[in-house]
Amino acid sequence: MTTESLDALFEAAVEQESDRPDAVADAADAVRRALTAVLRTRRDLPGLAKIAERVHALADDLEPRATPGRDRVEAMWSGESGGARHSPVSGARNAAALPVIWDRREDGAVEGHANFTVAYQGPAGFVHGGISALILDVALAVANRNAGSAGMTAGLTIRYLRPTPLYQDLTIRAWHESREGRKIRSRGEIRVDGKVCVTAEGVFVAARTGASNGDD
Amino acid sequence: MTTESLDALFEAAVEQESDRPDAVADAADAVRRALTAVLRTRRDLPGLAKIAERVHALADDLEPRATPGRDRVEAMWSGESGGARHSPVSGARNAAALPVIWDRREDGAVEGHANFTVAYQGPAGFVHGGISALILDVALAVANRNAGSAGMTAGLTIRYLRPTPLYQDLTIRAWHESREGRKIRSRGEIRVDGKVCVTAEGVFVAARTGASNGDD
Repeated sequence: MTTESLDALFEAAVEQESDRPDAVADAADAVRRALTAVLRTRRDLPGLAKIAERVHALADDLEPRATPGRDRVEAMWSGESGGARHSPVSGARNAAALPVIWDRREDGAVEGHANFTVAYQGPAGFVHGGISALILDVALAVANRNAGSAGMTAGLTIRYLRPTPLYQDLTIRAWHESREGRKIRSRGEIRVDGKVCVTAEGVFVAARTGASNGDD
Repeated sequence: MTTESLDALFEAAVEQESDRPDAVADAADAVRRALTAVLRTRRDLPGLAKIAERVHALADDLEPRATPGRDRVEAMWSGESGGARHSPVSGARNAAALPVIWDRREDGAVEGHANFTVAYQGPAGFVHGGISALILDVALAVANRNAGSAGMTAGLTIRYLRPTPLYQDLTIRAWHESREGRKIRSRGEIRVDGKVCVTAEGVFVAARTGASNGDD
């Protein structure tokens, strides 16, 4: 599979991501509620074993009827449903996806808003540093795409300036900076109360295409 | 809260992480099965709406009995249960945690094994780049801790050398490299079939302590 086709498929999937919620996304919402509630539960909660049994029974029902994973990959990328909906970061059908609300600004920059719970904790009371890296990776990629310069990530540098708190409103921003030949650069940051907690710099490589400026 | 106390709490939590599975972890296992099965489901599956209803009903039952999130943070870090069990990357109680099996090598380096499904997909057929960053962040932190040089992440540089495939056995490695004063360096990588897909370099800052060498 060439990088051209990956890129084209990615674009197509992003288009589809803006579809209305579907029955799978609703089931994923329900699973996300269960995930968060379980995480907050004390191990001595009466009836907890019964709760686990109910979820296992449900998985027993669903697993044999779900498409095998490899087949699912093929189907989603051939257009049956967008791969972006399954994204581990932003996919409506992925109950593990992060609770970030993304907006596209008029200048093409990306702005996201989030308020993380205990499910995303690293150090006591703070957002896990790897989760911040995950968010910024995605934000940079989207900012590039908005600028018409989508590419594969080649390098990502994250700097942690201060701990990012749980249970506070965070603002994530990312913007495209430059493109030279196939090399694309973008930056991003996570702020709380106007203060920068984490910054990111990314270098991306655009797909080789006939329309490129011939530097490859 | 000082960095000393964070560090001490983190150590304590890691100790507790090696406890036997508990009822909450079993419920989380069940939720993880449901999460993966839902993700693989086609939107036209007969009975899908009923499945979603069952999960919502379960969440309705559990949510009012679960501890509020902020209280949960306080309880877990005061010793009632280890925060590490709730980790979004490796926590047995967090159904969103990544399916990586971690080992500690005799030399203190960390080795992890994983085989990622469609739930962790970025580009078609490949692991999401942000997920690779998330894994390596954790691997580096654990390698530092094994070397007796735990610290908070200050910087993380990820390089993507080739796409990391889904549905193949991946090996993750991380090792402590050096410590100068409070500055700690470590490196890591993700390989498939012996080839390096992703590398990471991390800079961490150790907590100020009375036992430090006075460079702060």
